[in-house]
Amino acid sequence: MIDRLICQIEATQNPTVVGLDPTLAMIPSFIKEEMFERYGKTPKAVAEMFVAFNKAILDEVASLIPAVKPQVAMYEQYGLEGIRAYMETITYAKSKGLVVIGDIKRGDIASTAAAYAGHIAGADIEGEYYDLWQEDAVTLNPYMGYDGIEPFIKACNEKDRGIFVLVKTSNPSGVELQDLLVDGTPIYDKTADLVHKWGQMTMGTKGYSRVGAVVGATYKEQGIELRKRMPNTFFLVPGYGAQGGKAEDLKDYFDKNGSGIIVNSSRGIIAAYKKDNEVSEKEFAIASKKAVLAMRADLQGVMG
Amino acid sequence: MIDRLICQIEATQNPTVVGLDPTLAMIPSFIKEEMFERYGKTPKAVAEMFVAFNKAILDEVASLIPAVKPQVAMYEQYGLEGIRAYMETITYAKSKGLVVIGDIKRGDIASTAAAYAGHIAGADIEGEYYDLWQEDAVTLNPYMGYDGIEPFIKACNEKDRGIFVLVKTSNPSGVELQDLLVDGTPIYDKTADLVHKWGQMTMGTKGYSRVGAVVGATYKEQGIELRKRMPNTFFLVPGYGAQGGKAEDLKDYFDKNGSGIIVNSSRGIIAAYKKDNEVSEKEFAIASKKAVLAMRADLQGVMG
Repeated sequence: MIDRLICQIEATQNPTVVGLDPTLAMIPSFIKEEMFERYGKTPKAVAEMFVAFNKAILDEVASLIPAVKPQVAMYEQYGLEGIRAYMETITYAKSKGLVVIGDIKRGDIASTAAAYAGHIAGADIEGEYYDLWQEDAVTLNPYMGYDGIEPFIKACNEKDRGIFVLVKTSNPSGVELQDLLVDGTPIYDKTADLVHKWGQMTMGTKGYSRVGAVVGATYKEQGIELRKRMPNTFFLVPGYGAQGGKAEDLKDYFDKNGSGIIVNSSRGIIAAYKKDNEVSEKEFAIASKKAVLAMRADLQGVMG
Repeated sequence: MIDRLICQIEATQNPTVVGLDPTLAMIPSFIKEEMFERYGKTPKAVAEMFVAFNKAILDEVASLIPAVKPQVAMYEQYGLEGIRAYMETITYAKSKGLVVIGDIKRGDIASTAAAYAGHIAGADIEGEYYDLWQEDAVTLNPYMGYDGIEPFIKACNEKDRGIFVLVKTSNPSGVELQDLLVDGTPIYDKTADLVHKWGQMTMGTKGYSRVGAVVGATYKEQGIELRKRMPNTFFLVPGYGAQGGKAEDLKDYFDKNGSGIIVNSSRGIIAAYKKDNEVSEKEFAIASKKAVLAMRADLQGVMG
């Protein structure tokens, strides 16, 4: 998975991952009206909107990007129908050849972690194998330590899948725990050391492991330090654009070959039509394509 | 929700929460065979097994306990069908009057946290309200700080629901991050201080807030310290039984009225038939009832 991600970033010359995180407020009115008319004001209507919205965007941008990152929460809030839409989105993205990073931020222990690992390991029902979630990689929370990570490492090795562990998040109150100092060293650096160690258990062939790290774009100095602590760790970087992170701040997150990170943008791309006066609402996916091209150009300026 | 939980613990004289965390290996063979025959070796078959298993146990134990805690991971690994089984289990438990704590351990920021809060807040689709998940309370991960908690506090206040935030987990590698020392104070104590603060924003009427804490049964001394730091915080205690926690270790987790905690047991109750020579496999739910009564007696011995 990590090798394929790197190949696809090289092929598209674009370290952009599109966050497929739709909200009801983002859906163009003509889609919203059609689905409400067909299905009423129901979770099914919302699910169908999300699928139609995502597919239209993927049709425009898939050839320009290496990967997508659907945020399961946006779907999960609409119950079973929402989760069906999440799965359909993944199936469609995979049919376009994209690497799919499920942003699920799960974290638990022992047999429970093993169950969550089904996201990337699939389910074995007495010899019948099902890949029900289909994510190529998922995001995980490290609060419970290695017990919560171990079953995923196994799946990384056996199925060539990946994980991205939260190290330093881009939100303001991330500092409440992550920035506490242990003998002068912040917790996020301690987490980074764990992630580096875990990564050594499942290396790809291009210098990077299948254990990546989530490192926010909003704390430049910390990103530089984290790059040093995790030389074999691919960074998944949220916080670009809408949350205030700029391409120039990411310059030192890249390795010397201009690789090593993938930068997420969600509403900046999928809701681009709301801020683009040159396109009509019907052309929302064109606005997303323009936003992807602009982001690629922006990032290429600092990839070195 | 927290007031109702306390009332139901008093009414049953039992601070036991039954973890409805089925696995395929736990399902009695006569149920397994029936469902495989009907639906093949499919996720639907597993989902139907889990529902039948849980319902039979609930029929025996519901009147003896205040609450249940289904672990969503066990269901989630079987995809959509699995999640349907999770939801059906919750609906059934609520029909029996039980408080349902969804063990989902979600944690994310801003708009994503708001979406996850749908678990307890429900979904509003242009004025139509759906309570799709139906949990009375859910477990949460604190790694991202208050940003990830805030939308849930709002739902706690508006809908009288609850959350339990991970403070000190019962697994061995929980120490990797949680026990790091910040100026001599472990991280879990720092988390405890945050949880106490968050709890003040949503107090019930019986001295406890709607923000509870997950505090493992396997670290007695730490539990005593945490009780002092969080005087208004209800503890959800995993690790009893199968993970090695004993009732006597929990003595000081209770407040002076013998309240303030709820103790989880999962496989020790739902898979009790595997270790009970007096019942046949067909009577698996009877074994669960016996295990609940034994656990209640065990806990009553230390409730003071």
